[in-house]
Amino acid sequence: MIVAYDGTNYCGWQVQINGITVEEVLNKTLSELCHEDIKVIGASRTDSGVHALGNVAVFDTESGIPGEKFSFALNQRLPEDIRIQESCQVADDFHPRYCDTIKTYEYKILNRRFDMPTERLYSTFVYYPLDIDKMKRAAAVLVGEHDFKSFCSSRSQVENTVRTITDITIDKVGDMIHIRISGNGFLYNMVRIIVGTLMKIGLGIWPEDCMESILEAKDRTKAGPKAEAKGLTLVEIKYL
Amino acid sequence: MIVAYDGTNYCGWQVQINGITVEEVLNKTLSELCHEDIKVIGASRTDSGVHALGNVAVFDTESGIPGEKFSFALNQRLPEDIRIQESCQVADDFHPRYCDTIKTYEYKILNRRFDMPTERLYSTFVYYPLDIDKMKRAAAVLVGEHDFKSFCSSRSQVENTVRTITDITIDKVGDMIHIRISGNGFLYNMVRIIVGTLMKIGLGIWPEDCMESILEAKDRTKAGPKAEAKGLTLVEIKYL
Repeated sequence: MIVAYDGTNYCGWQVQINGITVEEVLNKTLSELCHEDIKVIGASRTDSGVHALGNVAVFDTESGIPGEKFSFALNQRLPEDIRIQESCQVADDFHPRYCDTIKTYEYKILNRRFDMPTERLYSTFVYYPLDIDKMKRAAAVLVGEHDFKSFCSSRSQVENTVRTITDITIDKVGDMIHIRISGNGFLYNMVRIIVGTLMKIGLGIWPEDCMESILEAKDRTKAGPKAEAKGLTLVEIKYL
Repeated sequence: MIVAYDGTNYCGWQVQINGITVEEVLNKTLSELCHEDIKVIGASRTDSGVHALGNVAVFDTESGIPGEKFSFALNQRLPEDIRIQESCQVADDFHPRYCDTIKTYEYKILNRRFDMPTERLYSTFVYYPLDIDKMKRAAAVLVGEHDFKSFCSSRSQVENTVRTITDITIDKVGDMIHIRISGNGFLYNMVRIIVGTLMKIGLGIWPEDCMESILEAKDRTKAGPKAEAKGLTLVEIKYL
């Protein structure tokens, strides 16, 4: 299934005790629909407040419902902030996290004098002017294979912190800055820490040539703060 | 003041007993800020659930706060779904409704297989494909000075139903159809009834040449249904 959601009212993807999650709602809705105990496996365990246009989830079922009909059947039962965009049957051994993929995230920053209420849930508001040319030049340093340890929340226990960013684009439409980052995998909070670092540079607080030394330091404390969750959207996961 | 708001959680602009309104929140916040009883006058009394990027409101005060500082002072106290975009002092006799203006509304329709959660609050979802070329040709008939009685909710008691639409543009970006309508004044529910009629035409339920006869009928029952509030945004009021 390709799953879209508005993350505003969810404690992220993964089932947890502190609050309702997207995974939990999908498990419950699928189990009711199929009258069996179903647990989905998600491709990307997005954080609390993060949105998705195209997360991917897979499940096993004994149900006779054809794969492509699940989208319609589920959308009738799901809350309106979760929508299955597409569904189909896949090979029995398909695991959405153990495949080569390119994931694309978008981060939106509204850069103007006052926030705009109709944009507030899906972007971060920044009052001081951001220099996107500086941000573009700094972002270019991140493209390629690097050890992104400096851009990984220290809570993470992952051992190999080398990842490849295939593309970063930054553009501005009106007052809205769109930062799109694609890569073969992302560490815990990596996109939000990259964006927080780019903001420091765009504001002129840090020099635009600081990215290289941040990468080399392999030290979380050298990178910028983690940008707010609500500005982040998982746009697409491409299976290679 | 230029006032932007997300109408999702408000019973429209105008103070009423059934629920909280934007006007009420502004009155309360201004009165607290200035320690006097303040009542705003709004340019456009938008309906329940309708959004605004640029409604206009005016008030009298004895306060010594400079006009241009009210935006900052109010935004610190307002809920995040209302934001003053700009404020300034105006002439004592300025009334936001008794001036020549051009108002611009935008209506958004998401036209695809399934709704997108992150768009759902600010657009209307339509499953069946809309033919926007038909909609454009039908909309063109409405431009100019006409008696729009057919496009006015019958609850309205206004006597003169002649208005001028200066411009209608319809375009599609991805799956999102944007209908922009500008004019010197709009009757009660006029934009939403025009959009509801254009949808009938776009779906092929009504012929594209039906607009002229609907106008001529001067009969609300001949036009299409009123489109949902959440797709409508008051974009701008230009004072001439």
